[in-house]
Amino acid sequence: MATKELFNVRTPDDAYRVLADHLTPSPRQERVPLDEALDRVLAEDLLSPTDLPAFPRSTMDGYAVRAADTYGASEGLPAYLTVVGECLMGQAPTVSLALGQAAVIATGGMLAPGSDAVVMVEQTQAVGADTVEVLRAVAPGENVIQVGEDVRQGDRVLPRGHLLRPQDLGGLAALGIVEVAVVPRLRVGIISSGDEVVAPDQEPGPGQVRDVNTLTVAALTRRLGHLPVPYGICKDDLAALHAVARRAWDECDVVILSAGSSVSTRDMTAEVIAALGEPGILVHGVSLRPGKPTILAVAGGKPVFGLPGNPVSCMVTYDLFVTPALHHLTGCPRPPAEHQVRARLTKNVASAPGRVDYVQVRLEERDGELWADPVFGKSNLIYTLVRSDGMVKVELDKGGLVAGELVAVTLC
Amino acid sequence: MATKELFNVRTPDDAYRVLADHLTPSPRQERVPLDEALDRVLAEDLLSPTDLPAFPRSTMDGYAVRAADTYGASEGLPAYLTVVGECLMGQAPTVSLALGQAAVIATGGMLAPGSDAVVMVEQTQAVGADTVEVLRAVAPGENVIQVGEDVRQGDRVLPRGHLLRPQDLGGLAALGIVEVAVVPRLRVGIISSGDEVVAPDQEPGPGQVRDVNTLTVAALTRRLGHLPVPYGICKDDLAALHAVARRAWDECDVVILSAGSSVSTRDMTAEVIAALGEPGILVHGVSLRPGKPTILAVAGGKPVFGLPGNPVSCMVTYDLFVTPALHHLTGCPRPPAEHQVRARLTKNVASAPGRVDYVQVRLEERDGELWADPVFGKSNLIYTLVRSDGMVKVELDKGGLVAGELVAVTLC
Repeated sequence: MATKELFNVRTPDDAYRVLADHLTPSPRQERVPLDEALDRVLAEDLLSPTDLPAFPRSTMDGYAVRAADTYGASEGLPAYLTVVGECLMGQAPTVSLALGQAAVIATGGMLAPGSDAVVMVEQTQAVGADTVEVLRAVAPGENVIQVGEDVRQGDRVLPRGHLLRPQDLGGLAALGIVEVAVVPRLRVGIISSGDEVVAPDQEPGPGQVRDVNTLTVAALTRRLGHLPVPYGICKDDLAALHAVARRAWDECDVVILSAGSSVSTRDMTAEVIAALGEPGILVHGVSLRPGKPTILAVAGGKPVFGLPGNPVSCMVTYDLFVTPALHHLTGCPRPPAEHQVRARLTKNVASAPGRVDYVQVRLEERDGELWADPVFGKSNLIYTLVRSDGMVKVELDKGGLVAGELVAVTLC
Repeated sequence: MATKELFNVRTPDDAYRVLADHLTPSPRQERVPLDEALDRVLAEDLLSPTDLPAFPRSTMDGYAVRAADTYGASEGLPAYLTVVGECLMGQAPTVSLALGQAAVIATGGMLAPGSDAVVMVEQTQAVGADTVEVLRAVAPGENVIQVGEDVRQGDRVLPRGHLLRPQDLGGLAALGIVEVAVVPRLRVGIISSGDEVVAPDQEPGPGQVRDVNTLTVAALTRRLGHLPVPYGICKDDLAALHAVARRAWDECDVVILSAGSSVSTRDMTAEVIAALGEPGILVHGVSLRPGKPTILAVAGGKPVFGLPGNPVSCMVTYDLFVTPALHHLTGCPRPPAEHQVRARLTKNVASAPGRVDYVQVRLEERDGELWADPVFGKSNLIYTLVRSDGMVKVELDKGGLVAGELVAVTLC
C-alpha cells in the first residue's frame, strides 16, 4: 500500500495557478443566432454598424418645438405656438417646423425637421385645434435622444470574452446584429472508476454502490454552459482505464476522472493520467480538506483532472479547479461571480493552519438574521451535500472559525 | 392624451403581493430522467427506497477488525492479529472474522462479518504475510459508515418544490432514483407592440427602431428554466393586439406584453389586458423608477404583465414581478438567491421618498475595494444596461444615497 502521491502538496491557489499557466484559451469560434447566444462567450469584439438611435427621438409625450420659440415662457406668460401636424410613430415626419410652429409627438417619436426639443404635454395647454400654450421654456435637446447618443457607429459595444447576458442580446438586436461569433461549448469527458461502482439504474450487489459523481460532474458542467460527455464506469483495470482515458482525451477538450478513494485506485488513476501526454501531472495533492488527493494535469494542451471519488471532495475540487479552468479556456476574463451570502456560524469549526477547509453549512433564519449551521459528517457521506445550502471556507492561515463569527457562505 | 392609468399606484412589494394572492402553484407534473432534471422543480416528495449505505463501509484503507481485539493496543504494546483475507472492493467478503482475526480492507470496502471497526493502515505494521501489529485501539464503529447512516429507507430526502442542484442529482442516483416528477416548464408568451418597432433582422426606416424587449425577455425567461414563446411584433392596432394577446393567453401559462412608452399605447395595452378575463388588472402603476407604468393582471388564473417598453424599465420590472411570479407558479418556496455584492457608491444618487429607485451601476476595483459607479442616462437609452454590471436599490423611504455609502449591488 505504498503511496506515490502527495509528494508535492500545494495550496489551492498555487495549484490552480500552475494549471492555468499551462492552459491557452481556445481560438475556435462558431456563429450562432442571438436567441441561442445567451450565456455564451463572445469570440469577437463587436463594433456597432450604426448610430443608435438613428434619428432624434423624443423621450416624452408632448410637442416637438424649436427651443428658441419657448424662451422666457412661463405659466404667467406662455408662448403660443401653431400646431402644424403630428410626428407619427414609426414614420418620417411629414411636417417641418418654421418659426413659431410645433408638432404633436409621442414618446419614441422622430423629431420633425426644424424642431430641436420637446415640451412635455403636462407643461402645455391646448388652445383650440391648432394652437398650443407652452408654459415652460425648454433648452435645445431637452427631452430628446440625439442621433448616436446611445451608441455611435464604430463603437466597440462588447469585447471578445464577454459572457452574453439577456440585456446584451437586446442591445445587439437594437443594432441589427442578429448573429454572433462565440466560443464553442467545451466537451468535458467524464470517467468514473472503481470495482465497487455500478450505474444508478442498476441494483447494487453486496459491497457495490451506485455511481454518484458522473451525474454531479455532468450537471456542474452543464451549469457552466459546457457539454458533459459521460464515458460510463470503468473497473479498476489499468489497461481498461488507459483505453477509456485515451478515448476521452481524443474526443474531448477536457477530461475528468473521478476515482475511488483507496490509495491503490488513486495510484492507478495517476499512472493513467501521466501516460496521456506532456507535460503530464502538474499537481498531485493539495493542502485542502476535503480534496487533498486531487490531481491536476495537462496533456497536449488539454487539462485532465483526477478528482477524488468521495462525492463531497469531488464537488469541492470541481468548483475550485475545473470551473476556473473552463472559464480560462473560453477566454472569459470576468466569469459570473459566485453566489455568496453572509451569515453567522452556529458552531465552532476546527481546521489546521496550512490547509484550506471547506465546511458544508445549512442556512437558517433566526430572528431576522441568517445563520450558517455546519453539517458535519464522516467523509464519504453523500447526503452531507444534499442537506447543505452552501460552503464556508476556512483560510489557509486559520486554525478554525468561532461560533458567532460572520462568514461568507458560497451557495451551492 | 388623457391617461387612464396610475389611478392606483402601489409600492413594488405591495404590488407583487396583490398579484401573488391571485396565483396558485401549478398542479401539473411530468417525469424526466435525472440527467434532464437539473434546475427543475420537484413535483413530489422523494422518499428513499433503500438504506444508504446498504452495507457497513470502510472510510479508510486498513484492516477490518473486532474492536474488542484492539483494546489497550499502543505503539509500545501492539495487539497482534491474524490476517485471514481481504475484503475485495465491490464484493461480499468471503471471510468472516473470529477472535483475534483481521482482514485487509480499502476505503469504500464492505466490512467482513464479525468485524465492527477499521484500523487505519498508518496505525498498523505488517509482520510477515499473515500477521499485523495494531498500534492503536479503535472503538466499535470507528472508520465505518453504518448501514443507513447516510440515509434511512423511507426518509424524505427532498421535498416537493425543491429546485434540483447538481449534488441532489448525485444523491438521487445513489439511491437508484433515476427518474423524477418535476413541474413542467412554464410557457411564457411574449408580445412586443408599437407602430415604430421592427424585427432585429430588418432595416428600420425613418422613425423606426428594432425590437429589443422580445429577445431580452426571452433570455430572462430561459435563464429561469422556462420556455419563451415569442409572438412577434404587433402594430398599435386594438383589434390586432386583442387577437394576439388572446392567442398567447390560450397557448401559454403566462403572458408578457411590452408596449411602447406613449400614453396612448399604454392605454391600449391596458384595455387589451383587461379584456382577457377575470379578475383582470390588479395593479396599474407602481411607485418605482424606472417602471412606473407597469400593469399586473390575472386572467383565468394566468398572470398577464404589461411591462414598459423602455428596455431598462422592462428588465427592472421583469426582475421585480415576473421572476417571483414564475417561482410562485412552480411552487418553489426557496428560489435561488440573487447574486449580490457589496460596494461603495462613487457618486450621490438622488431619489424621492415614497418611490423605490433602481440605479444601474458599473463595478470597479480601486485599491482592492469594490466601487459601484452609477451609469446615468436618459430613459430609453438601451445601452445603459449593457454598460452596467448590476443595480442598486434605493428604498421607498430614502431620499437618495450618498457617495461613499456601502450598498448591495444585485448583479444582472
